Amino acid sequence: MNILFIGDIIGRTGRRAVESRLHTLVDSRRVDLVVANGENAAAGFGLTANIAAELYDLGIDVLTSGNHIWDKREIYDYLDRESRLLRPANYPPGLPGRGCGVYTTAAGLEVGVLNLEGRVFMNNLDCPFRCADREIESLRRQTPIILVDFHAEATSEKAALGHYLDGRVSAVVGTHTHVQTADEGVLSKGTAYISDVGLTGSRDAVIGMRKEEAIDRFLTQLPVRFEVAKKDPILCAVLISVDETNGKALEMHRIMEDCG
Amino acid sequence: MNILFIGDIIGRTGRRAVESRLHTLVDSRRVDLVVANGENAAAGFGLTANIAAELYDLGIDVLTSGNHIWDKREIYDYLDRESRLLRPANYPPGLPGRGCGVYTTAAGLEVGVLNLEGRVFMNNLDCPFRCADREIESLRRQTPIILVDFHAEATSEKAALGHYLDGRVSAVVGTHTHVQTADEGVLSKGTAYISDVGLTGSRDAVIGMRKEEAIDRFLTQLPVRFEVAKKDPILCAVLISVDETNGKALEMHRIMEDCG
Amino acid sequence: MNILFIGDIIGRTGRRAVESRLHTLVDSRRVDLVVANGENAAAGFGLTANIAAELYDLGIDVLTSGNHIWDKREIYDYLDRESRLLRPANYPPGLPGRGCGVYTTAAGLEVGVLNLEGRVFMNNLDCPFRCADREIESLRRQTPIILVDFHAEATSEKAALGHYLDGRVSAVVGTHTHVQTADEGVLSKGTAYISDVGLTGSRDAVIGMRKEEAIDRFLTQLPVRFEVAKKDPILCAVLISVDETNGKALEMHRIMEDCG
Amino acid sequence: MNILFIGDIIGRTGRRAVESRLHTLVDSRRVDLVVANGENAAAGFGLTANIAAELYDLGIDVLTSGNHIWDKREIYDYLDRESRLLRPANYPPGLPGRGCGVYTTAAGLEVGVLNLEGRVFMNNLDCPFRCADREIESLRRQTPIILVDFHAEATSEKAALGHYLDGRVSAVVGTHTHVQTADEGVLSKGTAYISDVGLTGSRDAVIGMRKEEAIDRFLTQLPVRFEVAKKDPILCAVLISVDETNGKALEMHRIMEDCG
Ligand SMILES: [Fe+2]
Ligand SMILES: [Fe+2]
Ligand SMILES: [Fe+2]
Ligand SMILES: [Fe+2]
Ligand SMILES: [Fe+2]
Ligand SMILES: [Fe+2]
Ligand SMILES: [Fe+2]
Ligand SMILES: [Fe+2]
Repeated sequence: MNILFIGDIIGRTGRRAVESRLHTLVDSRRVDLVVANGENAAAGFGLTANIAAELYDLGIDVLTSGNHIWDKREIYDYLDRESRLLRPANYPPGLPGRGCGVYTTAAGLEVGVLNLEGRVFMNNLDCPFRCADREIESLRRQTPIILVDFHAEATSEKAALGHYLDGRVSAVVGTHTHVQTADEGVLSKGTAYISDVGLTGSRDAVIGMRKEEAIDRFLTQLPVRFEVAKKDPILCAVLISVDETNGKALEMHRIMEDCG
Repeated sequence: MNILFIGDIIGRTGRRAVESRLHTLVDSRRVDLVVANGENAAAGFGLTANIAAELYDLGIDVLTSGNHIWDKREIYDYLDRESRLLRPANYPPGLPGRGCGVYTTAAGLEVGVLNLEGRVFMNNLDCPFRCADREIESLRRQTPIILVDFHAEATSEKAALGHYLDGRVSAVVGTHTHVQTADEGVLSKGTAYISDVGLTGSRDAVIGMRKEEAIDRFLTQLPVRFEVAKKDPILCAVLISVDETNGKALEMHRIMEDCG
Repeated sequence: MNILFIGDIIGRTGRRAVESRLHTLVDSRRVDLVVANGENAAAGFGLTANIAAELYDLGIDVLTSGNHIWDKREIYDYLDRESRLLRPANYPPGLPGRGCGVYTTAAGLEVGVLNLEGRVFMNNLDCPFRCADREIESLRRQTPIILVDFHAEATSEKAALGHYLDGRVSAVVGTHTHVQTADEGVLSKGTAYISDVGLTGSRDAVIGMRKEEAIDRFLTQLPVRFEVAKKDPILCAVLISVDETNGKALEMHRIMEDCG
Repeated sequence: MNILFIGDIIGRTGRRAVESRLHTLVDSRRVDLVVANGENAAAGFGLTANIAAELYDLGIDVLTSGNHIWDKREIYDYLDRESRLLRPANYPPGLPGRGCGVYTTAAGLEVGVLNLEGRVFMNNLDCPFRCADREIESLRRQTPIILVDFHAEATSEKAALGHYLDGRVSAVVGTHTHVQTADEGVLSKGTAYISDVGLTGSRDAVIGMRKEEAIDRFLTQLPVRFEVAKKDPILCAVLISVDETNGKALEMHRIMEDCG
């Protein structure tokens, strides 16, 4: 079975990129489940209920997220209501929403999805490694097909988690840096891994935002109002083929499509 | 003319990978200048005079570096003596070594090389953007062919510098994360850009170091003695074709070669 | 001659504390110049022209600031116009405002004031040590009486700058942590030093802000809207006695006054 | 009953300061229990079994620690064996040592001591707030007299934990910055609090280490070998008077004694 994972969707530019390519991708690659990181879908910062609904309508089955999911307060209630929207599981107990779920494909296959956030250069969260141990043990009671979105900054933390979970999940895909890495592959015990899937949004930009303000931020160190860039849209994703009998990854294929 | 830039060489594994592939690459791609980042060439941490000499013997013309260049004190004198070894230019004035140089190829072309280090999640250095302004103005008086190794962590800082220097240098190549990115290309005003060239060392590892200790570090938060990994060596590089009449990049091509 | 330096004024609570105590302090301690850090005077975040004017009316002669001075855009023009308002000198060139000035007391004494910001755990700025070298050399051509407000987080960086400038300025006072330290004194070459002067605002609070939201921030890691606390106001300051003939500090005296 | 808590003991200078003053302090203040932070007792970095034994011989009853406790590997076994030595409780499960204990005074009173480490600008640990909830609930089953050493950098995190635990423990004392703060007091529900007790070591120094190397570190950004400073030794501590019937603090008194 095939899972398509789409990297951080950046604002309207990213949503239009999904709209323009997703149906073709799903058909041509015989995709069974579409998962996408939606933490930047609302003008680059967070997500709203309306935009989440728009993304589900475009054909996304499950949304994951990351540090920016908390940017817009109006999503907090929605996080509690919508089981197809995840936020990192290793935030403290008691927060809105959930960090993992099991989703059924049209063909009746059950797929577990787990969302985690890194700690290096990021928020002060619970240990993503131990959180993964707990959640994966629970998910594996339901299905061997498990996808982990590890939303993290440091390549060392991402690679370490990939190897740590090797053989226990179908795939570990990194998000957050908004730049696709070229290290995709299947690790020795059967887990597909990539350090970062990359963004779905403008390529002629600084991680999806307009260059002018981004450069200005570095030159001045002053607070800056970032704007979503529009030019040269791309869709970054990975296609993961999984042996549905045991959850092992057969292959991971990188996708970076021009959507201009 | 063609410049080959090799990403962070990690210990003996990386040096053997260079040895096994560099001559073939130089011949088959008609490379005029070989530049490599050597900050991790000595057992993963820093560089020594002997190891630098070994790398020049293998066919590397110029070594750049980054934050780890200061790990071994014995290199400090060598930094002052060896004009083919660079350390980031935006360290404070008065430190050993130099941050840029102009090197002449066998065909008599002059190529400027500038090494910079990022500040986001890294050391407290002088502004790499303003440092680049100064150094590039000076280099351009000698040659329009200029390569910048921007040794930095955050994709935003790297992309911002790439766009900032677009049209003023032939290429901006990122190093330090040890993971090759898939965003290589030529920006709109003629500067080739990639966020990270990736490592030259073991792929079956955590950024070139053994998995066991790296995972242990994240699980325990204790200080750990990292060891260079050996399995599954690769060489990561980019080949940059430059129009020698004006210094504009014509093409950037990613290289990730198995050296097993 | 005597300089009174008042630590970070936090919102209305801090302004009312200044109002209630400043005149008495100035009279009883025979203060010649009143300097105060105003970066949090506007509801805890930044400063406005109106609030700066209010603080001058209360008897403050010079306002320094720090990282929060940039929070409110409306102050940017004012920074250019008002020579009695400083922002850290080690921001990049070209930004609004100035980092130092020379001010004349009623008795006709000239006092240089220099504002710097630390880099450890803070913004990516120019080196405060080298910036201090330049600015102090220039100020000393006008007057030997010089006060430095070093707005910084880490005690190591603060103490290092204090010792670095020992003998070259009358005083180095730390701000930013909002907690008064007990290490005030005169260093061996005649510079008065304290790691942090402390806040002027509510003591029954978390660095001047309401406890409830501050605790919530740590428990949840979510973005939180901080509010200025009101209970138990205090004024934190230091009184520095300077030998006006040579700029050497004679004494530094800590002040923490209840303003309830 | 009276608890004396001594701040971070820095190398031999700090040990000699303890030796010179502790007996007099214990006698004159009628101290029932002496607790000290020993994370820097071995040449500024970590602790050894011999040095711990030396400190117990000098009259210290319980040693707490912090991030530097892991610097010397030889202490790891000792951490498992010696119940009078604590390391922060919020490190991951399975590490050497323990984070809290209950100790009996000569008069037969039981005192719980809990060691925690902050996360802001520090290691990626488990939440100190939730860890405190668990450990304090357990300690309170044995005794209402509880001292917390919160080893942390940011004043906001320290103050937030103090208020969070107010009424549940006898005292929260901060360590790690090596600079004594002047905000000691008893919070509204009966918990004594100080942001930092300060160091026991050389005052004419940069947080206890020689000025020369510390300044050099900031000027060059190069790795530096820090040395324990010797001049002008002080002992920083707090004396906490506790109502032994209910564990409420009656008073907290700051101590900074010259030991020259
Ligand atoms: Fe993102
Ligand atoms: Fe993110
Ligand atoms: Fe490296
Ligand atoms: Fe590096
Ligand atoms: Fe402040
Ligand atoms: Fe501040
Ligand atoms: Fe310490
Ligand atoms: Fe510490």
